[in-house]
Amino acid sequence: MATEDGAKASGRRARRGGGREGRRVQRGAIGSAAPAYVTRKLNPFEIVSEEGLAQIEYNADSLLEQVGVEVRDTPRAIERFKAAGAMVDGTRVRFPRGMCREIIQASAPSVYTQHARNAARNVQIGGDATVFAPNYGSPFVHDIDNGRRYATLNDFENFVKLAYTAPHMHHSGGTICEPVDIPVSVRHLDMVYAHLRYSDKPFMGSVTAGSRAQDSIDMARIGFGGDLADRTVMTSLINASSPMVWDDTMLDAAEVYAANNQACIITPFILAGAMAPVTAAGVAAQSLAEVLVGIAFTQLVRPGAPAIFGSFASSMSMQSGAPTFGTPEPAIVLYTIAALARRLGVPFRSGGSLTASKIPDAQAAYESSATLHPTLMAGVNFVLHSAGWLEGGLALGYEKFILDCDQLGSMAAFAQGLDMSPNGQAIDTLLQHPPGEHHLGTQHTLQNFETAFYTSTTADNNSFEQWAEEGELNSAKRANAIWKKQLEDYQEPALDPAINQELREFVERRKGEIGLHDS
Amino acid sequence: MATEDGAKASGRRARRGGGREGRRVQRGAIGSAAPAYVTRKLNPFEIVSEEGLAQIEYNADSLLEQVGVEVRDTPRAIERFKAAGAMVDGTRVRFPRGMCREIIQASAPSVYTQHARNAARNVQIGGDATVFAPNYGSPFVHDIDNGRRYATLNDFENFVKLAYTAPHMHHSGGTICEPVDIPVSVRHLDMVYAHLRYSDKPFMGSVTAGSRAQDSIDMARIGFGGDLADRTVMTSLINASSPMVWDDTMLDAAEVYAANNQACIITPFILAGAMAPVTAAGVAAQSLAEVLVGIAFTQLVRPGAPAIFGSFASSMSMQSGAPTFGTPEPAIVLYTIAALARRLGVPFRSGGSLTASKIPDAQAAYESSATLHPTLMAGVNFVLHSAGWLEGGLALGYEKFILDCDQLGSMAAFAQGLDMSPNGQAIDTLLQHPPGEHHLGTQHTLQNFETAFYTSTTADNNSFEQWAEEGELNSAKRANAIWKKQLEDYQEPALDPAINQELREFVERRKGEIGLHDS
Repeated sequence: MATEDGAKASGRRARRGGGREGRRVQRGAIGSAAPAYVTRKLNPFEIVSEEGLAQIEYNADSLLEQVGVEVRDTPRAIERFKAAGAMVDGTRVRFPRGMCREIIQASAPSVYTQHARNAARNVQIGGDATVFAPNYGSPFVHDIDNGRRYATLNDFENFVKLAYTAPHMHHSGGTICEPVDIPVSVRHLDMVYAHLRYSDKPFMGSVTAGSRAQDSIDMARIGFGGDLADRTVMTSLINASSPMVWDDTMLDAAEVYAANNQACIITPFILAGAMAPVTAAGVAAQSLAEVLVGIAFTQLVRPGAPAIFGSFASSMSMQSGAPTFGTPEPAIVLYTIAALARRLGVPFRSGGSLTASKIPDAQAAYESSATLHPTLMAGVNFVLHSAGWLEGGLALGYEKFILDCDQLGSMAAFAQGLDMSPNGQAIDTLLQHPPGEHHLGTQHTLQNFETAFYTSTTADNNSFEQWAEEGELNSAKRANAIWKKQLEDYQEPALDPAINQELREFVERRKGEIGLHDS
Repeated sequence: MATEDGAKASGRRARRGGGREGRRVQRGAIGSAAPAYVTRKLNPFEIVSEEGLAQIEYNADSLLEQVGVEVRDTPRAIERFKAAGAMVDGTRVRFPRGMCREIIQASAPSVYTQHARNAARNVQIGGDATVFAPNYGSPFVHDIDNGRRYATLNDFENFVKLAYTAPHMHHSGGTICEPVDIPVSVRHLDMVYAHLRYSDKPFMGSVTAGSRAQDSIDMARIGFGGDLADRTVMTSLINASSPMVWDDTMLDAAEVYAANNQACIITPFILAGAMAPVTAAGVAAQSLAEVLVGIAFTQLVRPGAPAIFGSFASSMSMQSGAPTFGTPEPAIVLYTIAALARRLGVPFRSGGSLTASKIPDAQAAYESSATLHPTLMAGVNFVLHSAGWLEGGLALGYEKFILDCDQLGSMAAFAQGLDMSPNGQAIDTLLQHPPGEHHLGTQHTLQNFETAFYTSTTADNNSFEQWAEEGELNSAKRANAIWKKQLEDYQEPALDPAINQELREFVERRKGEIGLHDS
């Protein structure tokens, strides 16, 4: 194991800012007080019996045995499956009952560490850990000053900075938004560079081609000081083409990552009724089948390569067929698949702060909460889209990002459960306290007051009169001031200038080799 | 048992309205499709071990034994406790370990039926049932047209009508808002009359004096056709004066209700750090102690009278001391006390859609969700404040009410859990379906599409372009149109004119007897 060079990048931190707003932003900007990830002290909430889960597993195996998956445009992948015992008929690959599960359970880790450039920000993925990562993949950004517009590299860098300074955001993410001002062919280089330079939190690599995955690995190697030494430093998003198709783009990228011991999130993206049956147990069975194939593939490439069971499932508007978010049925799917992932023995990715709303209004918040609460309660290990998501993922909102990050802090506090220490029980102060007198000035209150409650960074708890006097701001307007201050106060984490130089040279060289084109 | 006279009041329903908005409102206005209450198919989420819960019970007993409660201005109540075995020292009443629990467990029902004027709307309180009731007690109302203003009887009646027409609102509530244009001395008469006339859902009686509780019972007797015959037709809110005080106002009202077999919600209202220690386990122990005394009192008045274990606990802003809502610590208290109530064997009241926000913005929605999700997951049986609450309870919002009601529908759907029927598993359609083809047109999708998903009444799931074309409405603006349409379409439930006449005469007579004054 190499020395963790990233550890020396301790990160200078914003110290400016006065008054209430200053304190609020400073708390937001520092982040050193928050752990690198959430360690949940609550058991996951179970909604399905063991018998029910076994039935869904049986259904998934029936599907793999009788229908199988289409494996498109990658004979090499088909060969791998065939050599492992799959039944191949052209591009259709069928699997004997239990085959994929056996392969996975023989080697896929249940827990792994994703290393960050700053070792203090390494994250555990799996088990009782929950890691929050930002929004992913939006072509648009939104803020309340300018409305919705195409995202640029400047926006991308802004969000890397905002994620870096958000104390309860554990991860820098990947394609936080699509910097559409950069040609597709080289976009991944600028994105990976931004993650390595503007943050020292863990991040995700490119998945849009095997070669781009390789570029991501090469850049990570430079960023981590020249040697990955089998450390997992990226966790990247590999999507199935549901229903029941795996294509060459995704399998090629997965192959590159797995071969280099980097982690893949194997994720069916399912709009129930379109990419799968409309019922939750049907979505769960199909998702399991697709994931079994995807994770088995990573283990065939390299036994022991980290892989996450991913699920993204949404429901649909009955009026228009548009995807809907924060509705109860995807929450039921989430709880069900979380339990299936635990039984399989691999980390689980799902959830986030999802909404169909175009703006950071009450709809956005209700829907985001209705996804985020199940996310925590189901014990999701890796949470993509945990902040910023708007408009079914088409847009990434600046204010939404700030508001969601505040909720992540709340979730982190909730996950600690009930403090039953003597101080938590407070029995001494209870027994000394006379009826009818308030507890504001007791020693117990004074000793605990500052740490007793999670403090929201965005809520206004003032009186109506004070709120009115301060301009009747809604929470989006307060969030608007916060992200601007956070960007203003942002300071880059330390990065060895030689490493930065090498990264820049790599990006320039590869841009020259690849050429600028939009595919 | 008397015949259920209320059953004949079947309630005519709104049928008007065309176009999308019309359909949306019509769904909202009818409500016949939704069950009278939620029957949860999920187990409550447990966050504390049995050992931990036993320790909190031990602490509560220590508190009752060593500190006891102050019982103010009601020697009759003190006598009852003394006769039952309590140790009395002036107004301080201490209880031998286990005494209150024994009294309660000997007679208090774990489940009861609250009868409605329309028997189809009877609700089960306790067990696997969750009953949603509106906001309670706000002196102000808010809407986005006029902002915040004092509530009037007209507002009160509006909200009785809105609750009546909301399909997932099971209960008409009590003091939904304070009609401050009516003198305090007779306000209860107009409120109870409004519940009996403008709704046929179950409701709550007045608790601000024993005589007003008696008026509520007398009016209910008329409203239910002349005979309550031991049916429980009201569930009313009895608050402790935390810490550790019970006063005559509340105990007098509780006595009247219990003596008439009407239900009391025995509720400490606790702002942690003020009315109790600042830590969650401390709040739980004190709440349990106060509730043990309150429910034991009802059982001493009349063994078997229904009583609910209530808890209202909030946290506090560290900056200002203002109450805060939707934060993680009250959720932890909620889960803890829900488990204590189950162990005691009585129904539990807590939760709601709480927020400190002054307006129906993202803060309001995040905070409301952060209370409502735990409410459902903890298996709360009676949910006061489930819709409309703003500004820490000081204001009741028209738009907030509509938005919250939509969330109640979502919770009701979630509570049904995973459908593992053959249709739910969808294995036949999965095995017949080729990879790569969508499921939109399959027989299974077509058969299930209309019932597969909960349909939000307030969300906009349209494309950005369509949303922009329709005026870029935020969710509060959409809710504004909905409540107006819902009031416009409102039609009174059937009420025997003779009963209505008798109620009116009762109100007029009592107003003359009581006189108009503001206390």
